Amino acid sequence: MSLVIVGTFNLDTIETPKERRESIVGGSGTYCCLAASFFTAPRIVGVVGEDFPRDTLCLFKEKGIDTEGLLIKPGKTFFWEGRYAEDPNKRTTIATEVNVLKGFRPQIPEHYRNADILFLANIDPDLQEDICVQMKNPRLVAMDTMNYWIHTRAQSLLNVLEKVDVFFANDEEVRMLTGELNLITAGKRILEKGPSLVVIKKGEHGAIFIAEDFVFIVPAYPSEKVIDPTGAGDSFGGGFLGYLDKVDSYSEGDFRKAAVYGSVLASFTIERFGIDRLSSLTSEEIESRFAEFQKFVSF
Amino acid sequence: MSLVIVGTFNLDTIETPKERRESIVGGSGTYCCLAASFFTAPRIVGVVGEDFPRDTLCLFKEKGIDTEGLLIKPGKTFFWEGRYAEDPNKRTTIATEVNVLKGFRPQIPEHYRNADILFLANIDPDLQEDICVQMKNPRLVAMDTMNYWIHTRAQSLLNVLEKVDVFFANDEEVRMLTGELNLITAGKRILEKGPSLVVIKKGEHGAIFIAEDFVFIVPAYPSEKVIDPTGAGDSFGGGFLGYLDKVDSYSEGDFRKAAVYGSVLASFTIERFGIDRLSSLTSEEIESRFAEFQKFVSF
Repeated sequence: MSLVIVGTFNLDTIETPKERRESIVGGSGTYCCLAASFFTAPRIVGVVGEDFPRDTLCLFKEKGIDTEGLLIKPGKTFFWEGRYAEDPNKRTTIATEVNVLKGFRPQIPEHYRNADILFLANIDPDLQEDICVQMKNPRLVAMDTMNYWIHTRAQSLLNVLEKVDVFFANDEEVRMLTGELNLITAGKRILEKGPSLVVIKKGEHGAIFIAEDFVFIVPAYPSEKVIDPTGAGDSFGGGFLGYLDKVDSYSEGDFRKAAVYGSVLASFTIERFGIDRLSSLTSEEIESRFAEFQKFVSF
Repeated sequence: MSLVIVGTFNLDTIETPKERRESIVGGSGTYCCLAASFFTAPRIVGVVGEDFPRDTLCLFKEKGIDTEGLLIKPGKTFFWEGRYAEDPNKRTTIATEVNVLKGFRPQIPEHYRNADILFLANIDPDLQEDICVQMKNPRLVAMDTMNYWIHTRAQSLLNVLEKVDVFFANDEEVRMLTGELNLITAGKRILEKGPSLVVIKKGEHGAIFIAEDFVFIVPAYPSEKVIDPTGAGDSFGGGFLGYLDKVDSYSEGDFRKAAVYGSVLASFTIERFGIDRLSSLTSEEIESRFAEFQKFVSF
């Protein structure tokens, strides 16, 4: 039982049609480790600047997150600014400042290297590969990515893809990567490139899990309160892998339950800005929503 | 046990990126009654011209469909021409010829009037209301509609809405009708206008059923073979109501199973042009796919 998460740890400025929040904590690694922390004690790898809030570092420790692999470097934290349209599925990147992430080469702490599960959250695919090399035979490797890397670094991304068991991407990214409009066909194409499980995230429409021998469809929580969709996909991945690490077993049945926990975590994240909802969330709330999902799909 | 279906019976010309079919049989009533015929003996109401194929009328009878309410008038059958983009969710209407549908006022045959279930498939809302008045207290009334009627005849549509128990529409239509972007909120708004169940069809993303006291989410079949999406929504409604009529009970549990049968029927329709797939479909194929749906969502 051990989960290493590599990702970005950001400061984000987020604008929705109703509200604007400046320089709040975000990033794929942040959402992912907080979501996973409800199930296990994740070990994180990444870099922040000196302006990254102490409070968040304390929160990580309170949640049992091992921060030894989180480097604090002189300078400013990676910054992203985005704006959401009335339709929360539509977002525009306004600005990106690489800051301390520039030239960052992650060093995996010695006691991380034997971990069972490695999650390469959305980050430069070359860094993802770097990490793979430093780990000692993890039992399960998962990766996430984003359209930017598919556009600019497809070959690097394909190199990582060969080495992973589980590939997460959203519908648009899966189509972009394969040139296939049909998501099921696109998912199968990606299976041929290495992974044994492809997870296609579809925002408000949930996610589809495609493996050689099964398809699993998990809905999104039918939420009326979408305040800030940032981090939904990362929370999904964190919940999924956190649960798998907790049960310490990776059967089809485990993947199915893990998928629902992923969708549950994502549904909470979007209820408030940034990590606000994950910070106050309880295991009881998670279990209660998990039970609701059972009712949504039972027939 | 008796189901009356009112709808259009068309000749359609359909163009997809790969193929074009001219003047093939289509229409909301056609897809709906064929889908329902796997569960019950639907009674249909509508009008066709003298050019409507005899073969299809024979097929209706073979399938146990009561065609007494289907008027054959001198002139040409209602005609629709549409074109699908590479993304099968995007379609454009190229032409519409009202033909024999012009001035049509449906007369419900006497032996239809005591039916348990009335399904007002997509047709002019004034005709839908006409039918409601002629029926003698059906136990369940359902309606479908389309963006054209919401645009041009919102008030007529709202009048019908007050009288129905189940309202079917797609996501775009539900948003248009309520001015609400969030589908769950939009669904709840429509519940306030009369129906006790709102069914939001989302194409490849399945459908959401919203009632006062439950939400049910049914996926679409993860199909790789989408040849012609025409009639998917009508087949969904036909499968749904056909099943309810068969079990002769309208509990929440019945609605859930009926929803899956709806999605199963829709998934077959799109595998070939027009009604080709429904014409050759067997009950065994339906049951087998129903069982597959159980596997898609079980956790």
